[in-house]
Amino acid sequence: MVVAPTTSIDTLCVNSIRFLAIDAINKSNSGHPGLPMGCAPMAYALWDKILRHNPRNPKWFNRDRFVLSAGHGCMLLYALLHLTGYDSVTLDDIKQFRQWGSRTPGHPETFETAGVEVTTGPLGQGIANAVGLAMAEAHLAAKFNKSDVKLVDHYTYVIMGDGCHQEGVSGEAASLAGHLGLGKLIALYDDNHITIDGNTNVSFTEDVLKRYEAYGWHVQHVADGNTDIDGIARAIEAAKAVTDKPSLIKVTTTIGYGSPNKADTAGVHGAALGAEEAALTREALGWTFGAFEVPQDAYDHWRQAVSRGEAAEAVWNGALADYRAKYPAEAAEFERRLRGELPSGWDANLPGYSADDKGLATRQHSYNCLNAIGPNLPELIGGSADLTHSNLTDIKGEKGFQKGAEANRYLHFGVREHAMASILNGLAYHGSGLVPYGGTFLVFAGYALGAIRLSALSELGVIYVFTHDSIGLGEDGPTHQPIETLANLRAIPNLLVIRPGDGNETSGAYQVAVANRKRPTVLALSRQAMANQAGSSPAAVARGGYTLEDSNGTPELILIASGTELELATKAAAVLRGEGRNVRVVSMPCVELFEEQDEAYRESVLPAAVRKRLVIEASSSFGWHKYTGFEGDTVSIDRFGASAPGPLCLEKFGFTVDNVVAKAKALG
Amino acid sequence: MVVAPTTSIDTLCVNSIRFLAIDAINKSNSGHPGLPMGCAPMAYALWDKILRHNPRNPKWFNRDRFVLSAGHGCMLLYALLHLTGYDSVTLDDIKQFRQWGSRTPGHPETFETAGVEVTTGPLGQGIANAVGLAMAEAHLAAKFNKSDVKLVDHYTYVIMGDGCHQEGVSGEAASLAGHLGLGKLIALYDDNHITIDGNTNVSFTEDVLKRYEAYGWHVQHVADGNTDIDGIARAIEAAKAVTDKPSLIKVTTTIGYGSPNKADTAGVHGAALGAEEAALTREALGWTFGAFEVPQDAYDHWRQAVSRGEAAEAVWNGALADYRAKYPAEAAEFERRLRGELPSGWDANLPGYSADDKGLATRQHSYNCLNAIGPNLPELIGGSADLTHSNLTDIKGEKGFQKGAEANRYLHFGVREHAMASILNGLAYHGSGLVPYGGTFLVFAGYALGAIRLSALSELGVIYVFTHDSIGLGEDGPTHQPIETLANLRAIPNLLVIRPGDGNETSGAYQVAVANRKRPTVLALSRQAMANQAGSSPAAVARGGYTLEDSNGTPELILIASGTELELATKAAAVLRGEGRNVRVVSMPCVELFEEQDEAYRESVLPAAVRKRLVIEASSSFGWHKYTGFEGDTVSIDRFGASAPGPLCLEKFGFTVDNVVAKAKALG
Repeated sequence: MVVAPTTSIDTLCVNSIRFLAIDAINKSNSGHPGLPMGCAPMAYALWDKILRHNPRNPKWFNRDRFVLSAGHGCMLLYALLHLTGYDSVTLDDIKQFRQWGSRTPGHPETFETAGVEVTTGPLGQGIANAVGLAMAEAHLAAKFNKSDVKLVDHYTYVIMGDGCHQEGVSGEAASLAGHLGLGKLIALYDDNHITIDGNTNVSFTEDVLKRYEAYGWHVQHVADGNTDIDGIARAIEAAKAVTDKPSLIKVTTTIGYGSPNKADTAGVHGAALGAEEAALTREALGWTFGAFEVPQDAYDHWRQAVSRGEAAEAVWNGALADYRAKYPAEAAEFERRLRGELPSGWDANLPGYSADDKGLATRQHSYNCLNAIGPNLPELIGGSADLTHSNLTDIKGEKGFQKGAEANRYLHFGVREHAMASILNGLAYHGSGLVPYGGTFLVFAGYALGAIRLSALSELGVIYVFTHDSIGLGEDGPTHQPIETLANLRAIPNLLVIRPGDGNETSGAYQVAVANRKRPTVLALSRQAMANQAGSSPAAVARGGYTLEDSNGTPELILIASGTELELATKAAAVLRGEGRNVRVVSMPCVELFEEQDEAYRESVLPAAVRKRLVIEASSSFGWHKYTGFEGDTVSIDRFGASAPGPLCLEKFGFTVDNVVAKAKALG
Repeated sequence: MVVAPTTSIDTLCVNSIRFLAIDAINKSNSGHPGLPMGCAPMAYALWDKILRHNPRNPKWFNRDRFVLSAGHGCMLLYALLHLTGYDSVTLDDIKQFRQWGSRTPGHPETFETAGVEVTTGPLGQGIANAVGLAMAEAHLAAKFNKSDVKLVDHYTYVIMGDGCHQEGVSGEAASLAGHLGLGKLIALYDDNHITIDGNTNVSFTEDVLKRYEAYGWHVQHVADGNTDIDGIARAIEAAKAVTDKPSLIKVTTTIGYGSPNKADTAGVHGAALGAEEAALTREALGWTFGAFEVPQDAYDHWRQAVSRGEAAEAVWNGALADYRAKYPAEAAEFERRLRGELPSGWDANLPGYSADDKGLATRQHSYNCLNAIGPNLPELIGGSADLTHSNLTDIKGEKGFQKGAEANRYLHFGVREHAMASILNGLAYHGSGLVPYGGTFLVFAGYALGAIRLSALSELGVIYVFTHDSIGLGEDGPTHQPIETLANLRAIPNLLVIRPGDGNETSGAYQVAVANRKRPTVLALSRQAMANQAGSSPAAVARGGYTLEDSNGTPELILIASGTELELATKAAAVLRGEGRNVRVVSMPCVELFEEQDEAYRESVLPAAVRKRLVIEASSSFGWHKYTGFEGDTVSIDRFGASAPGPLCLEKFGFTVDNVVAKAKALG
């Protein structure tokens, strides 16, 4: 192919990206050079001519957000951060690409590298995160901006590839973004016709722009994404001018542009060029510089980003000062949120219960909690994947976030669980103190697991409100009855799974979930009612597990239960005590928090010497043997459920006092 | 609203559906009347005027397939099965709607009710299953049909709702269906503008038809889906006439049509009408019949389906006889497949290995297995979600299934894991003996879990080829390194998770997976190489776990390992033996199969008295305590991974001989 040689400052800057990527990937002999080589022109156009950011302060609030949805192309992003002057990515860091402990891991991770806004790699999620970022911006702008001072005013930019477009999560999020008219979301689509299996014509021949138009997006096409830098910049400016729709700009490129033998092939997608091809590429692109050598002219040009960024931030700081002077209350609120401080007394109205209080479903308690904290916690924002009145996720008086009504904080996600979780992640990634929550049925966590995993990996304080948490939901039957779902979630590192057993524990679950701003929480909540316990308290939840009903001294038998089965455990314990057994009941709303208690506490709740232990949970036994050992047992379900009224399901599957008592006695 | 009274045989038949649904849901006081009431006309048009099926033989091979993607509307399907004369749904069955043990559960389940082609309820998957059904038909037609005899010639019809369109999995599958030009796939879209959260205008305002046009579908709109039965039928006929594209027919309806107070509201979506509103609906629709009363005229008309179906099957049986006479070899092959019999010798070429054979990655062994069985197992059909050369899922010489080349059996799914799993389910649901397989990275099981769960629930012999099964994959880092994924999958009932530890075990894994036609299997395969073991054999895998290296009599210590960690276990065992320890090494490629062995066998492998046990697996410890008890331990990973070369990752996370030996000794 004919390629454009390095003849101008533009091509010098563009090729600086390409060769940093080529050289880093050659050195590590691992990585994806094709995207950085093909996307370098659009990245240059965006980062050099349009993006408002401050390399000296990667966390400057009002920066434009940039998401590399096609995360495998991370050398593009590392090169951009280095070239524009971020301290987080030095040339030495680039030389450590994909090495142990480096700041340049194999996919971009927000917790590893300042300037990386979101963790990407699992395809399609990045654009969905970006929808969340754009929603955060629109919401905060609507809340805080004044006619004379705009505190919140930035764009969210995305580079996405063919793979991102093939993943369903991107379609879910794009449909919602179009509905919401997120005018400051602008995505560049790297249309290079190549995925790992070869030309996209083996599986992907749809008209992407037409599809996005159907979603309500503004769409454009830049036919020559390899050299038409001005055209790309013009298209971005045109996208910015369309304020009532998100924009998709298809930029047709050549993957691995410049490589004489590998460009436009799948071979350059995910493997190093090798020394020989790198040399040929240098020749083809007229690049006379050595490995990892960035010409000073390129640095000089790229690093104008620093002064531009400092100036932009200074202007914004001036606006903030102006805002403080004119609107001191709003400014205080805005800055509190940015500090990530929760308002004092946010949890003051969380209800407490005594055993005499009417038993409710924990989804109902959750509703009461949301409505107790909602008025005191204005940064709480969320909704449901079209199950509002089943999940009970609404807050009285709060209206829906809609186009033209972005200050509202109730989110109608539609039946889009994966996008919901990704958007909640995006709201958290925005770093503006929002406390995002979202609901669906627990079993449909399986539709969103890819994104829930990212909540945990990226340390995002998202709250998942998952109701209908067992066969107790009844008639909807096995497709809707979670069996393995609690185990699925508990196995994920850094995720809290809380299954409260009454009203107090639900209040405690919200205290934990809201307080944990670096850790996602799943609340597993029931459809059906249960009694309030005399021995429960909101505070107890923070320890994960605790003695709800104690024995006389060391027990001979411990019943361990969570959620709706807690009441069953206490009833069975009463029967056993009536027969002279010395029984303790342990409530275990959150295994992960219990595991994090010191050994003395854990021993005080579950003495190692007491081996007769029975776990009661209307869910898979998988994972519970850690507490039962070889000598204990479980009342659990290791098959799929059944369609019938909930109480009958529970009875048929052995969740009865008689069966629990019998199983307890069988322990000896 | 003004509604059409019952004045014709058409309205009599349509309202028979509506009132069966209303009455059944009122009786159970649970269910979703809105969809059956709104979709009754389109269902009548399809089932009475177009669908080719035989109520007397629900498994007649050449029947049209019907998928109710909006599975919550199952009373529509039960009413259709009953009215057209299926034995599987009597009036008594309908009166048992959503009751324990009934054949009319809360969502349609293929294993409960003859005539239910696929299990639906989790939205979006049904249309994706239908894509698989249509692919199966196209593939078999291309393989077996002759210019003078068409053995395989049926349509696949779908009713889907707004919720199905919002789920990403439907978009993934629809994009692929458009690419493949599946002309015999016809979907009716129940466009009723209502989902659970209310009017779709809160979250879903895209132009669905335009989107499907962008996917390459033929699209039509029937504006009055409430009464224009002829219009619906004409649209279906027009769709059939378009042979090179799948068709979407948007049929605008009123949810809960006929209910004076609840039609066109979310209130009729998922709750019983109640006695009073049912009476008002009877009045509005001029329905003079009692509860569960179907007028004889309606039965007489509907049940013409029986004679039509018998005649259609008889014609087809004639064609089959003709085919047998003219093409005996092909007929024998066709009928073998329909019986679900595997060809004798299908596994004859599966390789066996000795310890001297070069160690390979299990993904490479998997490739060798696929290529060993591929030529002998023509019903093997599958591919990868755009990771062919990473998953190594290709079979030499097999070309891609494409538009106009449907006889080919390699499937390019694109980067669409959820659709892939759903399509594999569809291929299995077709009931024509196909053995479907599909690959991605193990961690991306999290994108497809909703559908993998359905493979297990619906007893489908799908084979998941999931490679890059641990941190050993190296540089791609934490977003790509599964930690919790094996636990996620092992917790699913009826799913086999096999993680083979060398070449023999990989061959054994394929024997198990292919032989299990009622149970899905996940093969968890490595990126990196490992040694072949002297004590392994393909046959051993069927027992799930076995003694790979025995001790002298009862061991003092048992090392239990799977996959790549098996070699590590044997090396550590050698060191421990050198120090005089009496060590057994147990290979555990499949926990589920081991659990199903009799107690004597399990005791012979893992004697209860031996409490010093160390599990070694580069994955979460979650679930393994069942084998370690309180006294054992694990070498495992309960945090996210890291980006670095694979061997270094494994070393840093403790997968070294030294660490295993130290942990073993620490057991005492």
